[in-house]
Amino acid sequence: MTATLSPLAPVSYPELPALKGVRLATAAAGLKYEGRTDVLLAVFDEPAQIAGVFTTSKCTSAPVDWCKQKLSKGVARAIMVNSGNANAFTGKKGTASVELSADILSQATGFSVEEIYLASTGVIGEPLPAEKFAGVADGLVADAVPDKWMDAAKAIMTTDTYPKLSTRTVKLGETAVTLNGIAKGAGMIAPDMATMLGFLFTDAAIKAPVLQQLLSECVSGSFNSITVDSDTSTSDTVLLAATGGAGGGDWIDDVTDPRLSDFRDALSDMMLELAQMIVRDGEGATKFVEVQVESAESDLSAKRIAMAIANSPLMKTAFSGEDANWGRVVMAVGKAGEPADRDKLEIWFGDIRVAVEGERDPDYSEEDASAVMKKAEITLKVGLGLGQGRANVWTCDLTKEYVAINGDYRS
Amino acid sequence: MTATLSPLAPVSYPELPALKGVRLATAAAGLKYEGRTDVLLAVFDEPAQIAGVFTTSKCTSAPVDWCKQKLSKGVARAIMVNSGNANAFTGKKGTASVELSADILSQATGFSVEEIYLASTGVIGEPLPAEKFAGVADGLVADAVPDKWMDAAKAIMTTDTYPKLSTRTVKLGETAVTLNGIAKGAGMIAPDMATMLGFLFTDAAIKAPVLQQLLSECVSGSFNSITVDSDTSTSDTVLLAATGGAGGGDWIDDVTDPRLSDFRDALSDMMLELAQMIVRDGEGATKFVEVQVESAESDLSAKRIAMAIANSPLMKTAFSGEDANWGRVVMAVGKAGEPADRDKLEIWFGDIRVAVEGERDPDYSEEDASAVMKKAEITLKVGLGLGQGRANVWTCDLTKEYVAINGDYRS
Repeated sequence: MTATLSPLAPVSYPELPALKGVRLATAAAGLKYEGRTDVLLAVFDEPAQIAGVFTTSKCTSAPVDWCKQKLSKGVARAIMVNSGNANAFTGKKGTASVELSADILSQATGFSVEEIYLASTGVIGEPLPAEKFAGVADGLVADAVPDKWMDAAKAIMTTDTYPKLSTRTVKLGETAVTLNGIAKGAGMIAPDMATMLGFLFTDAAIKAPVLQQLLSECVSGSFNSITVDSDTSTSDTVLLAATGGAGGGDWIDDVTDPRLSDFRDALSDMMLELAQMIVRDGEGATKFVEVQVESAESDLSAKRIAMAIANSPLMKTAFSGEDANWGRVVMAVGKAGEPADRDKLEIWFGDIRVAVEGERDPDYSEEDASAVMKKAEITLKVGLGLGQGRANVWTCDLTKEYVAINGDYRS
Repeated sequence: MTATLSPLAPVSYPELPALKGVRLATAAAGLKYEGRTDVLLAVFDEPAQIAGVFTTSKCTSAPVDWCKQKLSKGVARAIMVNSGNANAFTGKKGTASVELSADILSQATGFSVEEIYLASTGVIGEPLPAEKFAGVADGLVADAVPDKWMDAAKAIMTTDTYPKLSTRTVKLGETAVTLNGIAKGAGMIAPDMATMLGFLFTDAAIKAPVLQQLLSECVSGSFNSITVDSDTSTSDTVLLAATGGAGGGDWIDDVTDPRLSDFRDALSDMMLELAQMIVRDGEGATKFVEVQVESAESDLSAKRIAMAIANSPLMKTAFSGEDANWGRVVMAVGKAGEPADRDKLEIWFGDIRVAVEGERDPDYSEEDASAVMKKAEITLKVGLGLGQGRANVWTCDLTKEYVAINGDYRS
């Protein structure tokens, strides 16, 4: 845990409205941290429709395995999240821990374990003492109220320096619906997903298969387009739950339903905002960087090149050192393994074109390029000159503080 | 340039013997550095057979393009190397620079430009002022002597904190032959190749196609099995030249010739030693780490997993923080995308098994594991429990010093 607020933290936080059909409560189960909450419970008044996306790690955590099993049904009554312990690589004990967690919550709520979702974040490899949930479960159920969003966002933080919340209100057909989301990130952040938890809620009436398709569509350009350190967690989880509490008639069960248009945009927008909040709170970050790759052979190729740039330690240290070192951009494009023609490359830092046609821009001014690098928010653009493919990804710089945080995170 | 000697530097340097048929000279052309040499010339008394391997970057430097063109002939009369400027991403100026460099050297030596090899390392994107070679070329040719190996190794350094040299003497059939090698590394070091130059010389009589096959075989387990920062340079070059000066009869022109057996081992061994020297001089390094992956589905799969571990910022910071954080090993195995079964994983730090069957070893002792991490040389072993595939790779830790070096390398 780092005590210093990220210099890229937001200046204010949105106040999330109550969302009909979901209630929240937090508690301190004492899993690892002293003097703070570490458990979040979200309960649904009526069975909610639910969708999820998870880490692509081959060594998934026990709660990720649990959620994936439950998702085929697409119905949730409760989500319980803890911070401080990821319950990952805990072998048979890990499976036993999620089962015990679900049993405890099932007894406290009266809901079937089949409709209980679990997520954990924190240290890997330490057995999770799930019996500690027994001491707080009844209190969580009794305390749950509709407007505890800030508390909820705080309870799931690990090395995060600030809570991450976002909200949108849109029309779904004639009905006004709300989207609320919270997330956590900080380190071990690379797409597919990151040590990143995101919990998105809506009172819209949308069936699980449609939610799943919307979530999967939107994750590619948001949570899967960010990177802090290229390290992919065992535990990444994003859940999207719909309560239907806003009313408005039938549950939408077709992803091509024209009423979804604004909802889809709002979901995508909210997910991008949360994803960018995670980058801004990257461990040790002092710079927020948008990498834009244009005119690549394909969108996928553009994204791979953008990620090669965003993950390059030499690029990330150049950002922290405020050095307009475009030679390292060339290096990163070259190492991506994607189609690239050295002599067609164009590179911009902010509005300053620094390289064109395979060499330094004739009008290059070190002073102008350096001025861009001194900003807290930097856009780096690369033109490949090959096709129509494009991608944007977001990252932060690599600082001594990142090394310090991760040199003694566990101890 | 960093002034502090790597704590992992060798305590002594080998004295390389003169090698019949090759002479060396160095000079200060003033390309970037003050008060040190920055050009190396190796000249061959008779045409040497030559082989090379190069970066896989899609944005190769002009000298890499030049060498690749010449290699089809397999004959060299001279190799000229400069430090301080990589002549990479310099567009048409880059091509003009290598042509001018070769012309200058051709005039000084009388050799055809077709038999002149060039390599450059240093800053990317700055035009190389090749005309500066004109001031030193005649002197280099006049000064060249057979025993300047230490000077040669020093002239090609960039952010290296010590020169890298290695030598072997073996029997090739009945003939005693010598292998001498020098290399440079430090940052932008990832396989395929790294910003890494290596120049290997032998007085053995071996034809270019055989040299090429031996070099390509040996590079996989040596220079292509190291990583400092996962960043692949535009300029990586390893050349292997054979003068035949040791005599011994016919030139070997068949890679299955039984006389090559010891030579192949010696070449492989020397290349591994030089590669490991580069890791020990990784920018900011305080730990030398061997990552061993065993019982993977295949050797290739093992190598990918080993590289995922070796390149993980969270692993590398755990090494610098002396934290036996095996949870991060699980994370890195999981993110590699290769076949892995969480519940079969075994992990050792040194001789200490920390995890078995998907969870913490029942006999795990934090104290014992931490004792391993406090050493300057650490072996990390991972057993996948799936097959016979294995790979060893070598890396160093990620420190605040790496960030400092690369935050202001150029300026």
